[in-house]
Amino acid sequence: MSFKQKLEKIVKKNNSLLCVGLDTDLEKIPKKLARNNDPIFEYNKKIIDATNDLVCSYKPNIAFYEAYGIEGLKSLKKTIDYLKSNFKDIPIILDAKRGDVPNTAKMYAKAVFYYWKADAVTVNPILGLDTIKPFLEYKDRLIILLIKTSNTDAKMFQDIKADSKPYYLNVAQIVKRWNFDNIGIFIGATYPKTLEELRTLFPTSIFLSAGLGAQSADIKKAVKAGIDENKSSIIFNASRSIIYAKDPRQEARKLRDEINKYRW
Amino acid sequence: MSFKQKLEKIVKKNNSLLCVGLDTDLEKIPKKLARNNDPIFEYNKKIIDATNDLVCSYKPNIAFYEAYGIEGLKSLKKTIDYLKSNFKDIPIILDAKRGDVPNTAKMYAKAVFYYWKADAVTVNPILGLDTIKPFLEYKDRLIILLIKTSNTDAKMFQDIKADSKPYYLNVAQIVKRWNFDNIGIFIGATYPKTLEELRTLFPTSIFLSAGLGAQSADIKKAVKAGIDENKSSIIFNASRSIIYAKDPRQEARKLRDEINKYRW
Repeated sequence: MSFKQKLEKIVKKNNSLLCVGLDTDLEKIPKKLARNNDPIFEYNKKIIDATNDLVCSYKPNIAFYEAYGIEGLKSLKKTIDYLKSNFKDIPIILDAKRGDVPNTAKMYAKAVFYYWKADAVTVNPILGLDTIKPFLEYKDRLIILLIKTSNTDAKMFQDIKADSKPYYLNVAQIVKRWNFDNIGIFIGATYPKTLEELRTLFPTSIFLSAGLGAQSADIKKAVKAGIDENKSSIIFNASRSIIYAKDPRQEARKLRDEINKYRW
Repeated sequence: MSFKQKLEKIVKKNNSLLCVGLDTDLEKIPKKLARNNDPIFEYNKKIIDATNDLVCSYKPNIAFYEAYGIEGLKSLKKTIDYLKSNFKDIPIILDAKRGDVPNTAKMYAKAVFYYWKADAVTVNPILGLDTIKPFLEYKDRLIILLIKTSNTDAKMFQDIKADSKPYYLNVAQIVKRWNFDNIGIFIGATYPKTLEELRTLFPTSIFLSAGLGAQSADIKKAVKAGIDENKSSIIFNASRSIIYAKDPRQEARKLRDEINKYRW
């Protein structure tokens, strides 16, 4: 089954375009839980148990696990195993933003798809097509290319004018010409005009968009600009605003419903 | 001690600008060794024991360890511990090419500097200054920004013309204006003209350059173009051509000496 088919099924089943970012930071979880044997996994399990009927995917950012070294990565492994055993219809996006020369990219692709068993991965495309191909060979997975990020300084390099348009659009137009089925597009929800521009360029591609939660993008504008003609093909990620909420389930439901309000 | 001071000491001691890339691939090491308990570490130890008086640094690329998951990362940990215990004057560059939004970059910086104890790290700058700052806070480490990579398709995105010069030069000129002491520059040894151009822009910065070995750049041109006025401040990395050579020590000595031949 392709990533797109897997995603369509869960979007329908859970009536949701919401992805929950499992970016669990040991310093931010309750002290009581932090005394547990594997507090990061236990916290993730709590979030997953509370939200699995409200999401279309989970997105652990591997940096939050790497920060605690091998122990942290064991928590990630347990989290992925827990999802694969209990909620195998929910795709896992490993947010890793990898990118390296071809010989090395092959090893990263092996890590994310073979070892971590992710359904999708984020990749930094700036090194060029030969560095993305080792990922693209995994045909049933989605390779989500960073086109425009949501942080404050994103414009510094990504918006440099080239050929009278911002750099990221030059990159996007080249990516478009490659015409690969399993490429997705990462773009911050904080730029509705860019979302619209990229949706025109990629009418059926899957978009991953971040910034609706803690980075407080305008939900209505982002949804209207980002959905495809089937009112789908975009995944809105929220991490901190949900996983550290007093009631993560209620917060996830609220955001899912608000996204849906503007879908139709 | 700053990275620069640490590097200068070892460059002098070993009379070397050579860095050996510890990119050990289980599929490429002798079958006999592969039956060992921790073959990746044992292979690295063999390389380190054979070359430690010939190098100015070691550069494990973390992808080669991630490919084997938690077991692979344990081999990296053992390799770094071995270096720190026995050759603590040789700086370790963790080639990780990380880059993510500020909140996440903080976690990556914690991983590479606090957990892995690297002396330097490679970072993809494309997300902007706010995403590089969490690394720069570790003042005694070197943050090596990818400016131009050595792979075949590097030009595809990195050479897009903007303001009548290639994109990477636009990026480099902005980086220059920041004026941070602990920023290094990554640039493929396959582009001597670019090396010269960037050396003019960054007269005293530390450069990391790859491609002298398996990617067969012209050594003379690369050395002449890349060294600073003290005939130093550039690290030439070779991985495959040394670690898989019949005699890694002989191969490392040959490359070190050839680099030195063009230094003076």
